Amino acid sequence: MGNYGYVSPELRERVLAAAEKLGYRANALARSVSTGVSHTLGVVVADIGNPFFAGVVRGISDTSRASGFDTIVLSSHEDLAEEKASMGVLLDKRVDGIILASAAVSPKEAKHIQEAMDVGIPVVLVDRALEHVAADAVVIDNRDASRRAVETLIAVGHRRIGFVWGPSSTRPVATRRELLAAAAKSLWTDSERLRGYLDALDDAGIAFDPNLIMVGVKTEATAADAAAQMLRLPDPPTALLCTENDAMTGALRAVRAAGLKYPGDISLIGFDDSSWAAVMDPPLTMIEQPMLRLGALTAERLLARIKGEDPEPEVHTLESRFIERGSVAPPRH
Amino acid sequence: MGNYGYVSPELRERVLAAAEKLGYRANALARSVSTGVSHTLGVVVADIGNPFFAGVVRGISDTSRASGFDTIVLSSHEDLAEEKASMGVLLDKRVDGIILASAAVSPKEAKHIQEAMDVGIPVVLVDRALEHVAADAVVIDNRDASRRAVETLIAVGHRRIGFVWGPSSTRPVATRRELLAAAAKSLWTDSERLRGYLDALDDAGIAFDPNLIMVGVKTEATAADAAAQMLRLPDPPTALLCTENDAMTGALRAVRAAGLKYPGDISLIGFDDSSWAAVMDPPLTMIEQPMLRLGALTAERLLARIKGEDPEPEVHTLESRFIERGSVAPPRH
Repeated sequence: MGNYGYVSPELRERVLAAAEKLGYRANALARSVSTGVSHTLGVVVADIGNPFFAGVVRGISDTSRASGFDTIVLSSHEDLAEEKASMGVLLDKRVDGIILASAAVSPKEAKHIQEAMDVGIPVVLVDRALEHVAADAVVIDNRDASRRAVETLIAVGHRRIGFVWGPSSTRPVATRRELLAAAAKSLWTDSERLRGYLDALDDAGIAFDPNLIMVGVKTEATAADAAAQMLRLPDPPTALLCTENDAMTGALRAVRAAGLKYPGDISLIGFDDSSWAAVMDPPLTMIEQPMLRLGALTAERLLARIKGEDPEPEVHTLESRFIERGSVAPPRH
Repeated sequence: MGNYGYVSPELRERVLAAAEKLGYRANALARSVSTGVSHTLGVVVADIGNPFFAGVVRGISDTSRASGFDTIVLSSHEDLAEEKASMGVLLDKRVDGIILASAAVSPKEAKHIQEAMDVGIPVVLVDRALEHVAADAVVIDNRDASRRAVETLIAVGHRRIGFVWGPSSTRPVATRRELLAAAAKSLWTDSERLRGYLDALDDAGIAFDPNLIMVGVKTEATAADAAAQMLRLPDPPTALLCTENDAMTGALRAVRAAGLKYPGDISLIGFDDSSWAAVMDPPLTMIEQPMLRLGALTAERLLARIKGEDPEPEVHTLESRFIERGSVAPPRH
């Protein structure tokens, strides 16, 4: 049953001989015979083209290679059906364990994860924790990072702080209850970052204004539109917190189009430092996620389970780093 | 032999049942029984974290998925041994064909590619052509793109044009012969871009100056150092052509550190447009590679060969796009 890939036995033998010639198969066989594992980890992330996930995957593959494991990576494009299909591919390719940045936002949507674990395939979640799923998760302190960024803005005098981007709800969000309900149906990271934003406003006694929270589909273009709309308000924001690179470049387009300069006219803080952010003029104040470490720790957790360790699943939270550069200043007047 | 992944038959059955539950295995089996292929493409690129390759992989996976093929991606990190090991993994995982951005720079280094093709696994090269390897290659017009960029600079009056980065030679390069010899031992794309730079200088009757060509290891930090060194010359460059994103951000660091403003003090053109380049102030003039189309066409060529087509191998060259923004101006004096 595992041999369905090729019809011709001769071709099969030739392929195996070629793999052996490449120095791989003999080792792989020797390893698997002695240990009973295929020495391959499967990874499903939202989009390998996102620099954040590219860094995480690099951390995973460096750590797994050091333990003699190969890594197979698939992208789900935040689509639950694609995520399930990708997990099927990985099981079919006989991976020993799976690392997953899941698009699931509810226990019901996460059934496929439980099913894989039920048949003995260890799964470790990365970047996104999932309540009611009994798997390890390795994440960063999204809520704290967001709260600290907003506190920094409040400390220099900002009270009108825009949030790009927020929940991916298709309905407008007017009340706090609607906002939290929309957040609960959003990706865990998005929800956590929004909660951190609200925490900081609450602590400072600032009422949240739904006009300052982007709601809807998340692309650079929609971020630009949302920021532009905020900047046209009678009482526009004096600062923006951008929760991803595309949100930041979108917001920057809107700031430029409105003829504004940062940090004089508007302060900016973004998630996910990049080499571009440091060479902007002025350079951007950013929240740096420890992507390599996130990937490495996730791989370590998975490898430990593959080797037979079976501790209670837990959520490991890594600290982000706040990099102050030149995009925050007190609001005008 | 194909079943070595797991020791316990019960576990194997449970895994297969789980994969079936996920809706994958039944389809995969049905497909493979009827066609004799596993419907999986293997891809080896230099670094999936590089936005260029991330775009190419997206193009490959979108096109292959539309034909019912899954895609497995591995990174070689420009290391030939890793590249060979990755191809071994892919053969072991029974892929139907392989797409490769090879780190090989000579026929001798490309032996593993010929070996895979010799056993009937189609291989299509992407981004980098390889002489003496009888495989399809899908590339962009690197030499023309580079020549056009330098011509644009010459047309507005520049004659001192720096090139970041050049050949990865460990020896200094003083003569044209040494330069071309170093280029011949560099990655095909790097070599082509350098040749385009020389073409444009030749056409304008400008002698090349080895002090204006970065030679050595290619990182953002070395690009910054090389650019800084050029800017300290008694007769510094008035323009820089940067052949990758990291070369551009490195060069920008050096320009800032020298207290220079672009485009007034120095003109800049870079390869690989990004959303950041468009929001820089002033926005950067960039060469955009058609990454998605590059990936899509590569997948189309490979799928055609998997389906049994067997035309003479050829090099398909796609056109890049020159995006004029605000980082080019006539030189001062």
